[in-house]
Amino acid sequence: MGFVRTVNDRQKSCVLLAENIPWFAAASRRKRWLVGVSGGADSVALLHLLVGAGFKDVVVCHLDHGLRGRASTEDAKFVGRLAKNLGLEFETARIDVTAQMNSDGESMETAARNARHEFFGNCAKKHRCSRILLAHHADDQAETVLWNLLRGSHGLRGMKAEQTLTTKSGVALQLIRPLLGVRREQLTEWLVANGHRWREDASNAMPVAVRNRLRNEVLPLLAEISNRDAAFSLIRGAAETEELDQLESWALDQVKVLDPQGRLHLPVLRSLPIALQRAALRKFLQGHGIPSPSRDLLDRGLGLLDTGGPAVLNLPGGKWLKRREGRLFFGS
Amino acid sequence: MGFVRTVNDRQKSCVLLAENIPWFAAASRRKRWLVGVSGGADSVALLHLLVGAGFKDVVVCHLDHGLRGRASTEDAKFVGRLAKNLGLEFETARIDVTAQMNSDGESMETAARNARHEFFGNCAKKHRCSRILLAHHADDQAETVLWNLLRGSHGLRGMKAEQTLTTKSGVALQLIRPLLGVRREQLTEWLVANGHRWREDASNAMPVAVRNRLRNEVLPLLAEISNRDAAFSLIRGAAETEELDQLESWALDQVKVLDPQGRLHLPVLRSLPIALQRAALRKFLQGHGIPSPSRDLLDRGLGLLDTGGPAVLNLPGGKWLKRREGRLFFGS
Repeated sequence: MGFVRTVNDRQKSCVLLAENIPWFAAASRRKRWLVGVSGGADSVALLHLLVGAGFKDVVVCHLDHGLRGRASTEDAKFVGRLAKNLGLEFETARIDVTAQMNSDGESMETAARNARHEFFGNCAKKHRCSRILLAHHADDQAETVLWNLLRGSHGLRGMKAEQTLTTKSGVALQLIRPLLGVRREQLTEWLVANGHRWREDASNAMPVAVRNRLRNEVLPLLAEISNRDAAFSLIRGAAETEELDQLESWALDQVKVLDPQGRLHLPVLRSLPIALQRAALRKFLQGHGIPSPSRDLLDRGLGLLDTGGPAVLNLPGGKWLKRREGRLFFGS
Repeated sequence: MGFVRTVNDRQKSCVLLAENIPWFAAASRRKRWLVGVSGGADSVALLHLLVGAGFKDVVVCHLDHGLRGRASTEDAKFVGRLAKNLGLEFETARIDVTAQMNSDGESMETAARNARHEFFGNCAKKHRCSRILLAHHADDQAETVLWNLLRGSHGLRGMKAEQTLTTKSGVALQLIRPLLGVRREQLTEWLVANGHRWREDASNAMPVAVRNRLRNEVLPLLAEISNRDAAFSLIRGAAETEELDQLESWALDQVKVLDPQGRLHLPVLRSLPIALQRAALRKFLQGHGIPSPSRDLLDRGLGLLDTGGPAVLNLPGGKWLKRREGRLFFGS
């Protein structure tokens, strides 16, 4: 694979870049969009691509995390000038992530992410726009998939191209990642070929040391051993996991696992494939105030289907699940 | 994670090993079983575990691949003596994998695997038993999952605990892998604690150089970076992919995507999640003599659902797929 190209190929790829990204073809130029711009190559490329593709009502949002001393201030100034030169609105704020971390006991990555979300929430309210574009690309995605896999994700799971969330202060945000299918090298090639400047990147949701090792050691090693583009395999795998999640939700809608009293009906549950049994039990527990039952808890819950085993499972918070007369009852 | 244990823990784990493997609890001691024994630690452990667990009608099957010169002959002698000492029947044969490779143009791994299957097929006919136990364990599985992922598998895919296949000469075999959930280190610990000897292992379905690099470089690096048992994440991922395959088959049985004339009914197809659309099209094409349509072909086939795009897709072998009046037609 790789991205070695002749100059002509490079020019061609640059012209085609925005046209080849499905999001750019479909998104409305008349709507307002917020864009998170750190000043690094990825977000600077996203901003220029947007402007080049005819988006006009774009608000550039930059949070100064205060993590890199004077360089942070320079980042903010750089992004401010860039917005001004492009004739776009600019929002910025400065926080002290280290102080936040210490007061809340969070990791630096978590504190920084929460701070960004709050900042985006403020921008969203001010500009009456909940849509935030973020510049995560395919190599970020591959690293995230691998990282999640190592931390015990179920299946290959990366960032979603569209994600809704509610900030701690209660603002609903829609995070959109138009570049998730674009390789890092394509973006930097495009920036270079078009004479755009950028600054070194800073913030990330993953510990910097880990991401650097995945990027600089693991992925090159995998590519060398397999003689293939290992990142591509990871990215495609994550896309398929998302499709299978959709299939699971659809399948769950097809079955009636509850009896008229709202208890799990075991003969129906037993007739389902195991993945669907687990999904049905998850939904049942969520409906009874257990918002995110662990995989382990679900598997122990499914153990109740075995009439030769225990008939009661204790749940956190004094709750329980009991098998009786072909039903699973919930109690507390 | 890791497997550092005190001596007491080790003794305990040894006693418990066979009891903790679900296959051993469920399998019939009265049936005959063929066991593939290379003479390496894994298959020697499997054989001793079987005998220790009360399996009596066991046929030890050893194929001498002729790849390691005198060492191959010594392997065969070692396994023959082991079978004799345990009072078990012994089957062996010698082939020249290199010659096979050259005449069929196969890779060494493929030639060796085909030769093993033919040999197992002969043993199966002679002993009227199609069940072959193989000693692949959890670390083999992790390496296989990673290797398949790098080669472009869809999702995390490893070896199956039970697999049926038909050899080139038409013998149906059932390959069973009882140790797929057991770590390599548990097996060698068990062998050492019980005073059993083994020989260096030889054959494998993956290029030896690649497997060695995954085993000795990639998996330790992943474990070091993440501070977790990377193999475990891969193995669990593969188990989940299998469960999702079952969910997909189940879901496909729930929907009626064919019209009375046996054509794909597009309004129904469009209402399904994408993973199920793809599965339905795969089944449809398989029913029309395209046994294993590629992922790419399926995605182009689903492109026909877009009424704004082309209405015909050419298939290999002069066949085609056409969209008309809300149906997909197959023709040739």
